[in-house]
Amino acid sequence: MKLALVQFNPTIGDVSGNTARMLAAVTRAESAGADLAVFPELAVVGYPPRDLLWRKELIEAVERALWEKFAPSSKKMGILIGAPVKGDNCLHNAALLFYGGMLVGRQEKTLLPNYDVFDETRYFQPAEDLYPSRFQGEAIGLTVCEDIWNDKDYWNRRIYDIDPVEELVAEGASILVNISASPYHFGKRRLRAQMLSHTARKHSRLLVYVNQVGANDELIFDGSSMVIDELGQVIWEGRAFEEDFAVIDVGAPRTGRESKAVNEDVSCVHAALVLGIRDYLRKTGFKRAVVGLSGGIDSSVAAALAAAALGPENVLGVGMPSRYSSPDSLRDAEALSVNLGIGWRVVPIDQVFQSYLVSLCENGKPKLDIAEENVQARIRGNILMFISNREGFLLLSTGNKSELAVGYCTLYGDMSGGLSVLADVPKLMVYELASYINRKREVIPSGVFTKPPSAELRPDQRDEDSLPPYQVLDPILKAYIEEGLSAGEIAGRGFNSDLVAKIISKVDAAEYKRRQAPPGLKVTTKAFGMGRRLPVAWSPGW
Amino acid sequence: MKLALVQFNPTIGDVSGNTARMLAAVTRAESAGADLAVFPELAVVGYPPRDLLWRKELIEAVERALWEKFAPSSKKMGILIGAPVKGDNCLHNAALLFYGGMLVGRQEKTLLPNYDVFDETRYFQPAEDLYPSRFQGEAIGLTVCEDIWNDKDYWNRRIYDIDPVEELVAEGASILVNISASPYHFGKRRLRAQMLSHTARKHSRLLVYVNQVGANDELIFDGSSMVIDELGQVIWEGRAFEEDFAVIDVGAPRTGRESKAVNEDVSCVHAALVLGIRDYLRKTGFKRAVVGLSGGIDSSVAAALAAAALGPENVLGVGMPSRYSSPDSLRDAEALSVNLGIGWRVVPIDQVFQSYLVSLCENGKPKLDIAEENVQARIRGNILMFISNREGFLLLSTGNKSELAVGYCTLYGDMSGGLSVLADVPKLMVYELASYINRKREVIPSGVFTKPPSAELRPDQRDEDSLPPYQVLDPILKAYIEEGLSAGEIAGRGFNSDLVAKIISKVDAAEYKRRQAPPGLKVTTKAFGMGRRLPVAWSPGW
Repeated sequence: MKLALVQFNPTIGDVSGNTARMLAAVTRAESAGADLAVFPELAVVGYPPRDLLWRKELIEAVERALWEKFAPSSKKMGILIGAPVKGDNCLHNAALLFYGGMLVGRQEKTLLPNYDVFDETRYFQPAEDLYPSRFQGEAIGLTVCEDIWNDKDYWNRRIYDIDPVEELVAEGASILVNISASPYHFGKRRLRAQMLSHTARKHSRLLVYVNQVGANDELIFDGSSMVIDELGQVIWEGRAFEEDFAVIDVGAPRTGRESKAVNEDVSCVHAALVLGIRDYLRKTGFKRAVVGLSGGIDSSVAAALAAAALGPENVLGVGMPSRYSSPDSLRDAEALSVNLGIGWRVVPIDQVFQSYLVSLCENGKPKLDIAEENVQARIRGNILMFISNREGFLLLSTGNKSELAVGYCTLYGDMSGGLSVLADVPKLMVYELASYINRKREVIPSGVFTKPPSAELRPDQRDEDSLPPYQVLDPILKAYIEEGLSAGEIAGRGFNSDLVAKIISKVDAAEYKRRQAPPGLKVTTKAFGMGRRLPVAWSPGW
Repeated sequence: MKLALVQFNPTIGDVSGNTARMLAAVTRAESAGADLAVFPELAVVGYPPRDLLWRKELIEAVERALWEKFAPSSKKMGILIGAPVKGDNCLHNAALLFYGGMLVGRQEKTLLPNYDVFDETRYFQPAEDLYPSRFQGEAIGLTVCEDIWNDKDYWNRRIYDIDPVEELVAEGASILVNISASPYHFGKRRLRAQMLSHTARKHSRLLVYVNQVGANDELIFDGSSMVIDELGQVIWEGRAFEEDFAVIDVGAPRTGRESKAVNEDVSCVHAALVLGIRDYLRKTGFKRAVVGLSGGIDSSVAAALAAAALGPENVLGVGMPSRYSSPDSLRDAEALSVNLGIGWRVVPIDQVFQSYLVSLCENGKPKLDIAEENVQARIRGNILMFISNREGFLLLSTGNKSELAVGYCTLYGDMSGGLSVLADVPKLMVYELASYINRKREVIPSGVFTKPPSAELRPDQRDEDSLPPYQVLDPILKAYIEEGLSAGEIAGRGFNSDLVAKIISKVDAAEYKRRQAPPGLKVTTKAFGMGRRLPVAWSPGW
């Protein structure tokens, strides 16, 4: 049996556009002699469609696409797609197998994730039955994404009672096919490759895994689809972070190997962020982005990522020096722009700042408090949004996860933007990305690496005035935010317990800022945003 | 049996503080000769605790409170409280009955709402069994909030298979007790009173309903607890929008009546918003609020609500006239401040605006485009945040739901603030609130009612330049957002279909702004925010 694996990048909600592109892949598969074309989970609507699933127009459009487009296109070749389908007064997240112009197999998703960024029980009811679908002499054990996951790290409540894969094998599945929309985080590609290899080997079944690719708001889907043989060896591996298409004869003689994904490094995070920026702009109808360049590491990395995503000709860097900026900073920002080949513009903020001081302070004299620091950051936000509004650039926000965690950022100031590029990248990982960006030549000037991190909002300010060194801060933040450890558990790792308490309190207190932050690209196991839902007005009474 | 009904306002997460205040109510109930004190759903942690439920410290603190505080305090009197409790590798949302120093009854919540603002299957597993709890010769049929709701309007997927109330009655429940945290929306008090009356009558059981009161971020809980007799008549009704305490002898002779809640009007929305503001500030540690006053209806109503919530001495109004402001507007804003007795300050923005124009426009000459309109709104945001940061006021954002729906508002400008007071109040309801505020004397100057709505960001601008009259806009928005109707269905109500399509498209396109909006107080069946989860980057392909 020849399978066409279509690692597809859908646009959320765009049923007609997605269908047209999927049917083009069907035609291509047919020309290549495939027996069955396989698409990802919910491919027709894109994942995650969120509350759009409650729109009648969407579900009606899906039904038209299924019966008027996909079914008729399956006359000579099988088509396996993910789509939301109506059940008994509910919706299911289903895998549908069309062949001969008809629906010949249907398997609803059994395990509905409802933790972290996932809300599937908000929309779907689980499958009531599991049985293999007959196709071309094979009994295909169809599963949808979560159905194949047994990794305990993913369950924050009881592990599901059912293992759909095991049941399908018991029901006689001769081959396993999983269609997915499995979002990326650093380490996920490796984890997934190991888990899938384990599953294929355990059940001695060929395993076909087709994952969505592309970014939708915060979530980045890496693709990395796979065909794994009965011994757990990889026969075929799709590209990471881009669309892919392959026709694989699963019955042909073959030699497997280990997955390339087991060597995951920071280059994956780089590729993920580039895709995240590119798709966010494309899917919101923007071509060009503007970035405020401070000469610091965060904005430098963000600009380099934007240039890689959009082409340097579509990126504008803006330097906005104040009375507190070091001349080095402006020089480094300009050098970065030249190295990247992006646009460069300087808009000094001091005159505007002075006019605020005149309006707001006695005799126009600054007091050098947090209020004035924030005014400067907000002047910069206002200037960047002006450029965005007048010239049609999307503003990218450049703050990192460590800052956002402890609230070392200004709401409506440097937090402004349509997309927050580094919102889920801890400061130390920002440096790793910077080194990766400079792997072939110096793109980010060396001065950017060596200068002590500073917001430059008052004379001689440094991050370390109010924060511990990032070598200490980042592991504490990871333990608290990603691992969900308590203050006591974190101190048990050897950190000063007063410091831990102080940092946790800063993180909790900054929730109000994060509530108003732009969407941030998720690249760790726990990002701020849709997957971390906390009250603003609360008090830790323990 | 004498019941003490404790309509309690918890602080989210504050286990020790909530416990102390609950135990004080237990003491009071004991002095009043009560047999059983009844508290709302999850009272120990407050509702909704959201992802705090995943913090070990919280659950450990709850366990300590239950076994070291509530159990020992129940020696002479029963205590019925809501709390999250550990199950078999999971959490339950439970009603716990303590008496004689022990746990004598426990009923887990059976129906877990997971739609709109509710995420309960993210945290909890449902009850596996339902059985009445024996206490003082009664068989108490205990249910938790959703367990007693059968209103079909609330289900957007299949109606639950189980009716816990029916099962408990079948198991011999002689009396029904429901502990709730049921958030308010306009019309909910009437709906709830009717539904509870129906349930009591249907089962011929006395029904005790104890609801949380107080606001937690977006959600406002109105209390309005009730005791309803076997005929569906109200014996006792708790206050709306404030804490209440009563001891009711359910066995005593009594005369029932219809609920006061059936006459719900705009005064309830007023009370809800006042509570929402007061609790948000109190629970985030603020005492004072600042409001930008434009002389328009929205900011006037917001300031009046803030004055009612915090006391006029704790509210500061700031007028920020520009070259495009009418003199009437500033005069009306000042008159309002005087009428309310709040602080008043004027910070003209024109000098700052001119300094932006000099920095950003050729020859400093304005082009009068949207970029410059937004700069002005953002200067005002920056000034208000400066006052907030320097003087410790919380900034209240004053935009209404109609504006926020169609994106007629400036991100980082008038959308700035810690809490958005009118974010879920449609423009026409803002006028109703204004009339209500003026019911005894003219607080909001008459000119505010009669001037045509305008953002005053360019010469002679009016809302109706870009929007239909609110008498047309508001019903279309309600049909789309609250009722979830399609474009075709809305046009079927007699609206021009091009206009409907244009408005829907504006609403969809403004999602990126709403993603970064402050929390807004929910007073309708569907508010923007946590209960309406839409992608930003998507495309309607139907």
